[in-house]
Amino acid sequence: MIRFESDYAEGAHKQILERLLETNEEQTPGYGMDEYCERARGYIRKACDAENADVHFLVGGTQANTTIISSILRPHQGAVSAITGHIAGHETGAIEATGHKVLTLPSDDGKINAKQVKELYDAHWNDATHEHMVQPGLVYISHPSENGTTYSKSELEELSKVCRECGLPLFMDGARLGYGLASKDNDLSLADIASLCDVFYIGGTKLGALFGEAVVILNDNIKKDFRYMIKQKGGLLAKGRLLGIQFETLFEDGLYYEISKHAVDLAMMIREAFVEKGFSLRYDSKTNQQFPILPNNVLNKLSRNYSFSYWEKVDDTHNVVRFCTSWATKKENVELLIEDIMKLES
Amino acid sequence: MIRFESDYAEGAHKQILERLLETNEEQTPGYGMDEYCERARGYIRKACDAENADVHFLVGGTQANTTIISSILRPHQGAVSAITGHIAGHETGAIEATGHKVLTLPSDDGKINAKQVKELYDAHWNDATHEHMVQPGLVYISHPSENGTTYSKSELEELSKVCRECGLPLFMDGARLGYGLASKDNDLSLADIASLCDVFYIGGTKLGALFGEAVVILNDNIKKDFRYMIKQKGGLLAKGRLLGIQFETLFEDGLYYEISKHAVDLAMMIREAFVEKGFSLRYDSKTNQQFPILPNNVLNKLSRNYSFSYWEKVDDTHNVVRFCTSWATKKENVELLIEDIMKLES
Amino acid sequence: MIRFESDYAEGAHKQILERLLETNEEQTPGYGMDEYCERARGYIRKACDAENADVHFLVGGTQANTTIISSILRPHQGAVSAITGHIAGHETGAIEATGHKVLTLPSDDGKINAKQVKELYDAHWNDATHEHMVQPGLVYISHPSENGTTYSKSELEELSKVCRECGLPLFMDGARLGYGLASKDNDLSLADIASLCDVFYIGGTKLGALFGEAVVILNDNIKKDFRYMIKQKGGLLAKGRLLGIQFETLFEDGLYYEISKHAVDLAMMIREAFVEKGFSLRYDSKTNQQFPILPNNVLNKLSRNYSFSYWEKVDDTHNVVRFCTSWATKKENVELLIEDIMKLES
Amino acid sequence: MIRFESDYAEGAHKQILERLLETNEEQTPGYGMDEYCERARGYIRKACDAENADVHFLVGGTQANTTIISSILRPHQGAVSAITGHIAGHETGAIEATGHKVLTLPSDDGKINAKQVKELYDAHWNDATHEHMVQPGLVYISHPSENGTTYSKSELEELSKVCRECGLPLFMDGARLGYGLASKDNDLSLADIASLCDVFYIGGTKLGALFGEAVVILNDNIKKDFRYMIKQKGGLLAKGRLLGIQFETLFEDGLYYEISKHAVDLAMMIREAFVEKGFSLRYDSKTNQQFPILPNNVLNKLSRNYSFSYWEKVDDTHNVVRFCTSWATKKENVELLIEDIMKLES
Repeated sequence: MIRFESDYAEGAHKQILERLLETNEEQTPGYGMDEYCERARGYIRKACDAENADVHFLVGGTQANTTIISSILRPHQGAVSAITGHIAGHETGAIEATGHKVLTLPSDDGKINAKQVKELYDAHWNDATHEHMVQPGLVYISHPSENGTTYSKSELEELSKVCRECGLPLFMDGARLGYGLASKDNDLSLADIASLCDVFYIGGTKLGALFGEAVVILNDNIKKDFRYMIKQKGGLLAKGRLLGIQFETLFEDGLYYEISKHAVDLAMMIREAFVEKGFSLRYDSKTNQQFPILPNNVLNKLSRNYSFSYWEKVDDTHNVVRFCTSWATKKENVELLIEDIMKLES
Repeated sequence: MIRFESDYAEGAHKQILERLLETNEEQTPGYGMDEYCERARGYIRKACDAENADVHFLVGGTQANTTIISSILRPHQGAVSAITGHIAGHETGAIEATGHKVLTLPSDDGKINAKQVKELYDAHWNDATHEHMVQPGLVYISHPSENGTTYSKSELEELSKVCRECGLPLFMDGARLGYGLASKDNDLSLADIASLCDVFYIGGTKLGALFGEAVVILNDNIKKDFRYMIKQKGGLLAKGRLLGIQFETLFEDGLYYEISKHAVDLAMMIREAFVEKGFSLRYDSKTNQQFPILPNNVLNKLSRNYSFSYWEKVDDTHNVVRFCTSWATKKENVELLIEDIMKLES
Repeated sequence: MIRFESDYAEGAHKQILERLLETNEEQTPGYGMDEYCERARGYIRKACDAENADVHFLVGGTQANTTIISSILRPHQGAVSAITGHIAGHETGAIEATGHKVLTLPSDDGKINAKQVKELYDAHWNDATHEHMVQPGLVYISHPSENGTTYSKSELEELSKVCRECGLPLFMDGARLGYGLASKDNDLSLADIASLCDVFYIGGTKLGALFGEAVVILNDNIKKDFRYMIKQKGGLLAKGRLLGIQFETLFEDGLYYEISKHAVDLAMMIREAFVEKGFSLRYDSKTNQQFPILPNNVLNKLSRNYSFSYWEKVDDTHNVVRFCTSWATKKENVELLIEDIMKLES
Repeated sequence: MIRFESDYAEGAHKQILERLLETNEEQTPGYGMDEYCERARGYIRKACDAENADVHFLVGGTQANTTIISSILRPHQGAVSAITGHIAGHETGAIEATGHKVLTLPSDDGKINAKQVKELYDAHWNDATHEHMVQPGLVYISHPSENGTTYSKSELEELSKVCRECGLPLFMDGARLGYGLASKDNDLSLADIASLCDVFYIGGTKLGALFGEAVVILNDNIKKDFRYMIKQKGGLLAKGRLLGIQFETLFEDGLYYEISKHAVDLAMMIREAFVEKGFSLRYDSKTNQQFPILPNNVLNKLSRNYSFSYWEKVDDTHNVVRFCTSWATKKENVELLIEDIMKLES
């Protein structure tokens, strides 16, 4: 069985494991106050061209989302998100558990736009009974989205502009950020993102690390007391250096970009194979997740040798499924898959 | 600088790292549904002589405490704890952040007893206005305690008996459990603990793992839907197998007990050295943490070559400090420390 | 200005005020432990044919909804509600503030049905990743709904049956319950409601009382420790007798039904006037709220002498508005309004 | 049975009931947007000499405490309070239910002082691991305290000064504020309180109103969006005018002060009677609550005709009890009590 069901099926990039081995017996202070974390912070600030950014390392995505959002919002405020956003549907109500509603916007492709945010904001403040409703308090986007789609620079600029006009901090969930940066359509740099968002994170779990997300805070208001929030939400790793070592490895020589490109290149090969055989794609993803619409007999055939995720039903004879590549995907496995796709009758 | 300031200053036991390396390229399902986790659960159930126990792996202690406690309590209930308990003072209000008060009992040595629990329970229910107060909903103990002390089998039996009479689930925080089991005073087995507690966890972070706590649930009422709670609190690790691999390594051949004994033996050597030189100990700890009361000039001398933690002030010229050993402590470093202690004028 | 904008524009029914005056100097125990509350509980149990029901008096609707829902749900569960439900949109996230998501079902008329609940329940449990989603934990309905519509006996029976099959407590928000019972389409008695729901409340604020909602708990599991929950949520009125006196007055001789009928009769006169003039109604309400779709010029004319609530936009020249009657509405005012409606050109 | 067990045993002052009757049929907008509330706000601002204060009316004390405290604190912060404070022990964990710890200071008489606050603040910030602890976020005091004691002007000035130096908003729970102002030792005016506190409330429930607390916000940071918080916490009364009418009556002609003085004068008569007979007082209260230490045989005798509250045990033969007077206490009842006290053998 060759697995394309997720981008977290393997361990870590071998350079990361080597570093963990090399440093294993060293003694360091706990909770992220060690020199590895400090150096990793420096590399990330540099990559973001954001000398004054605060950088914190958390273990996972749900934890990062919850800690960031609950740190920003006041009790009567909610987080604006696409209905498809991870916080809206796949975190067991983690945001609500901290007291906040997720205010959802319709989205077919996983993205939201500036106009939608402005309309929601205006609708709230123009309602005579707005005090009876949850006040929009920040905007959450994922990039790439849960559907593999990405924001262009101009889209993100417009969104950022509206957010600043409305006083809504803009927060980007970058659990798969590297795969977005590696998309051939991409015109956004980390520095662009750092200048347009108030806070975002750079995913490690799905991009070469054993685990870990690097939270980058640009807005000074959000920086204050953030370590208290991490500790309270259970995210302050005792051996914090494990996160520092991993992000140092990913960012000191461009490994993060390199492995992201590897995954996206392979995903595009899969995409092209499906397209060539005449299958449609549910979303126009240029990143590491591909969502072909396949007839049931094709699904049956492919599932003999490959694992992939069920996504949604189209009709009685067709379903959308998801194929993921990652930093760890082997080219030969992708070639086997493509061979098998090519043998299909579309 | 030789560090005795904590038991999480190094990485992981080398057998664990080797296993992580060996398995690194394997593809497994996520979120703890892999075969490594399954095998580790089996080893732990066997070690606890508790075939029907549910076993879950979490990343850290604050996360484990929060997830367990908030899963058990109804909104108007609180967790009974020693005033010195980790949840009472060192988790940035993580329990309160889930809506629950920590109901503290006085304690000088970190332990609480059956009589105290019964009196608090009776005081609540005998108060005519009890509905205006937080209802005790469970009892939290740490073993070893934050002060290195441990419960004897008869003490835990009495506590368990009262808790069952009062309908209060008994929860043991075992962040340093191995060091308690390795104490020469210990008469408790994992099976005893499993039969006397409703839920407890076996600490990995401070005992040879990179990170990880194994939660063991005995009470059927607490088992229900626990994975939802883990996910909501941000504790469901994507690459869950990392936890399975570590606990499998610790429990398949007794490594956990072996490395715990190593640490406690070294701690007892330190203890004896201080005692021999006539220094008092703040707590009667037979585990890996030692708390000598030292004059300031001694602290100054020792701090040139050794790191340790400040604990509390005794008077203007004396302070309590903490020396920790761990699975990773090198015997030669302890010998150097003892040599230097022996040179002190008491 | 004659006000039809809400059903809480006046004080209380004069019999209630008289009773408050008569009893004003009496001394009673606080917090609902007085004889007035006790008698009122008896009358309500009798009206519900539910001898074993627990009856509690709360001050307002948002408070009642929050207290009931947070008392029932475990942390990972949510409340299923119509998207139009009061808890979903008009309580400033009060449910989320207690940690729970509102799981919304589409609804055009304010009602939900058994099939929708079953489908949502099945969709949750059939999803392989259901632990990553909020688990449905109870079903909330409002009767009459926010749109004035009501459930028939057979509809409520079907809903109740599905809820019991799925293990989901059924909770009816009866802020305007009297107006539902007084609808000419109504075939539900209080006893029917008590036998089909697990918990519901009988609204007083909008039906003759200064304030107050009588919560009736039928399901034994929900009864436990409910007074703690009331106190914690700030709902345990010191002078609890004020609530007892009001509900005693409303229920000892049928005043509640009488004043409800008064309001609904007047609302139906307004409805008929609009219909006669050819205006459409947004919802088919047979209760005290009426929702005509009116052209802007009509709205302008009527707003000179009458207040009513804006509801929603239909198109550039038409809007839906709400006219409310209540126990306090004067027939002569309704007659004036109808006269003016009749003069309109439709 | 003559009741001295609480100060909320009766209804409301007759002038208040008369006003409610007079205005009963008027139609007003809901939720505190009516002219009665507006006028009451004006009277209170004037009484506080605080033109820019925001004034909000809530139904009860627990609600006021919860709404104010949760509005001010960020998630990692707690409320500093005397261990005896109402929020620390008598609100069923309402503060914790909003996510915040109550950080208690020892107190024998119900008061805390500037030095204690400064020490707690310094202890937090001087601790190297302060991020692992709840950060002090505001200071809560009750005046009069739960024990009937009051702050002098100089004490409050010192407290206020330290709070401002530390950036901790000072919040005064004034559930019995009138009785403090009426104490013969009092040297604080409402204007003083308004200039020294960031937010406080003027209790109505225990001082002549059916129910109601007037929250006065002085600090601009606390003003923002406060009505959202009231709604979310279930405190936005539909018929808000009921609160406006009551506070207008209490404050337009000094009724509040007059009835407070009545209660305190009677309480001092009771105090003097006990003292004259040689009984000790547990607290030095000059307000409407008196706490004599009485032998059990005396308690038995008095309890035949009078109700009072059990407070705490002194020894096997003595207990502290509480006698309350209120705006509604009849002088003849106090005289009967005093007669009976005088007949006691001390």
